[in-house]
Amino acid sequence: MAELRRDPIVGRWVIVDTDHPTKPEDFEREEHSYRAGDCPFCYGNEGLTPPEIEAIRDPSTHPNTPGWQVRTIANKFPALQIEGEIERHGLGLYDMSNGIGAHEIIIQTPYHHKELADLEDYEVENTIKMYCRRMTDLSRDSRFKYIMLFKNHGPSAGASLEHPHTQLIALPMIPKNVQEELEGAFEYFEYRERCVFCDMLRQELQEKERVIFENKYFLAFCPYVSRFAFEVWITPKKHQDAFCQMNQEQIQELAKILKAVLARVNEVLFRPAYNFIIYTSPLNVEHKEGYHWHIEIMPKLTRVAGFEWGTGFYIVPTPPELAAKYLKG
Amino acid sequence: MAELRRDPIVGRWVIVDTDHPTKPEDFEREEHSYRAGDCPFCYGNEGLTPPEIEAIRDPSTHPNTPGWQVRTIANKFPALQIEGEIERHGLGLYDMSNGIGAHEIIIQTPYHHKELADLEDYEVENTIKMYCRRMTDLSRDSRFKYIMLFKNHGPSAGASLEHPHTQLIALPMIPKNVQEELEGAFEYFEYRERCVFCDMLRQELQEKERVIFENKYFLAFCPYVSRFAFEVWITPKKHQDAFCQMNQEQIQELAKILKAVLARVNEVLFRPAYNFIIYTSPLNVEHKEGYHWHIEIMPKLTRVAGFEWGTGFYIVPTPPELAAKYLKG
Repeated sequence: MAELRRDPIVGRWVIVDTDHPTKPEDFEREEHSYRAGDCPFCYGNEGLTPPEIEAIRDPSTHPNTPGWQVRTIANKFPALQIEGEIERHGLGLYDMSNGIGAHEIIIQTPYHHKELADLEDYEVENTIKMYCRRMTDLSRDSRFKYIMLFKNHGPSAGASLEHPHTQLIALPMIPKNVQEELEGAFEYFEYRERCVFCDMLRQELQEKERVIFENKYFLAFCPYVSRFAFEVWITPKKHQDAFCQMNQEQIQELAKILKAVLARVNEVLFRPAYNFIIYTSPLNVEHKEGYHWHIEIMPKLTRVAGFEWGTGFYIVPTPPELAAKYLKG
Repeated sequence: MAELRRDPIVGRWVIVDTDHPTKPEDFEREEHSYRAGDCPFCYGNEGLTPPEIEAIRDPSTHPNTPGWQVRTIANKFPALQIEGEIERHGLGLYDMSNGIGAHEIIIQTPYHHKELADLEDYEVENTIKMYCRRMTDLSRDSRFKYIMLFKNHGPSAGASLEHPHTQLIALPMIPKNVQEELEGAFEYFEYRERCVFCDMLRQELQEKERVIFENKYFLAFCPYVSRFAFEVWITPKKHQDAFCQMNQEQIQELAKILKAVLARVNEVLFRPAYNFIIYTSPLNVEHKEGYHWHIEIMPKLTRVAGFEWGTGFYIVPTPPELAAKYLKG
C-alpha cells in the first residue's frame, strides 16, 4: 500500500508510492533542446547583455569584457522593473501593485557547457559568494521584502538559455509558499521554543536513512515529505536564519556539498533537468523566530503538472528512502 | 511595467506581464507522444482493464463488453487502495497514514481520438452525469473527506494514455490548496456574510473584460489572478456548494459551456495539452460557509516548473484580459 505523509512545516500531505517505486532508469528522458544562436553569456559576447552589475574577474580586466569568472547582469527581459515607487491599489474585490522589483542573472562560469557540478571548488565558492553579495546589496533597498535565488537547469525545468546561470528576483512581497513556511515554522517555535528545521535535522541524523552527504556545517538529505522524486534539501546543521549570514568557512563547505549533491544527481539520473531554490528569511519585515535557511533541489523527472499545481497534492513515485540509497556517495 | 496581482481567496501574488504579453502563436509547441500499444480504453478491449464499476451503456449489452458510452473502472495502477481501515501514526516529528482511498478512471467515450470538445452535447452531459454519480456514490464512504475529479489531457499535462479519460481520487484528507481556498472563502464570508466567489462573479459580469461565455446557469472567464496563460474558470452563477447539487438542467448547461470553452481553447491555442480540476466542497466534515464549486482549466503552454511549484509565485506571460479577448466566441 502507498503511504500518505504530512509535512510538519506547512501541513501538506503527499502520496508516496512505496509499493512500486520508480527507479532512476524508469523515468522517460526528455530531450534537451535550446533556442539556437550565439550565446550572450559566453566570453566575448558581453556587449549582447545589459551592462554588468558586479563581477568576480581578473583585476587587470575591464567590466563588460572577458576575464570574469562570475558575472551578474540585469535580466534583459525582466519580470519586474527596478525603477520607481511601489504603488498599490484596490480594483473592486482585487488588489494590485505595480511591478517593482529586481531581476538579475548570475552567470556562474564563462564555460558554456560546464554546469555547477563540473566546476572547480573555488569556482562554485565564487558563485555562492556572488549570491551572498547580491542578496546583501539588494537587502539595503527598503522597498524589497524578499529575495529569491533560483536555478532552472535544462529546458524542461524552464531554462531558455543553455549557458549555466542562476536567477535572482527581489520582490516587494513575500511569496505565498515562503510565507506559509515562515508561519508554520513560527507556530512550531511558539509552542515548543525549538526550530522545526533543527528538529528535522536531528531526526534525520539519528535515522540516517534519508541522509546523502554530511560535512562540518551542512547536511544533504531527501526529505521525508518529498514532493518530487529524488528531491534533495541542503541545510546548515546549526541554526541560521539567513543565507547571507554564512562566513567564509561555511561558504566553502556549502560549495563542496552542493557540488557533491549535483554531481551525484547527474550520475544517478543521467544529467536530468532540475531546479533549485534558496529559501531564506525575508527582509525589512518583523523577524519571525524559527526559520532556518535551506536549499531545495528538484530534479525534473516527471511531467505531471496542472493537477499538482492546482491542488497542492503530490504523488511521489520514488520514496525518499530509496532515492537516498541511490544518491548516497 | 508588469503588474503584481493578489488572489482574494488564498492571498497568492502573481506577476502578470502586461507589457510584452505572449500571444497564442508565441508559445513553443510540445510534441504529443504516447506510449505505444493497444489501447485498453477502446471497444473490444474491456478485458484489459479492471472490471467496470459503473457505465452508461446500451441496456441490451453486458458489463465489460462494448456498447457503453461512458465507462468507469478502477485505475489499474492506483495511487491509493480502496480496502482497509485508515491508520494514522506519528514517526518522530512526522505524521503518516496508510494509503487508503479510491482511484478511478472515467472513460468519456469509446472514440480514441475524440476529446470532450469533439463529442456531441448529450455525450458530454453523460460524462458529467457520471462524474456526479461517482462522487455521490463515494461520498457515502465515511472514510473519505474529499473527492477530486481532474483531467490530464496530452502527455505534457501528465496523461500517459491518449484515449480521453478523467481521473477521480477520493482522499481521507482535504488537499492543501483546497483547504486554503475553503479557509480563505470562509474568512471572507465571516466578515462580510457574502461569498467571495459570488462577489467575483458579480464584478466579472460588470466589467465583462475577462468573460468568455455565459449561459443561463454558468459563467466562463479568465480570472484576474490567473496563474497560467489562458487559464479559464467555469462557475455556477448562483451560489452552489457542491458539484453534485446540480440538477438535470444545470448539467445540460454545464455540458454546453464546458464544450464551448474547450473547443475555443483548441481553436485558439492549436489543441494544446491541458488540465482541468473540479473544485467542490469536502465531505463528511463540518460545513464551512462561503465555498462555491467551480472548474479550473489550465492549458499547458509553458514549461516553467520547479520555481513556481517551489515558491507558489507565478509569472504569467499572457494577461487574462488579453487571453479573454482571444477566447471570446
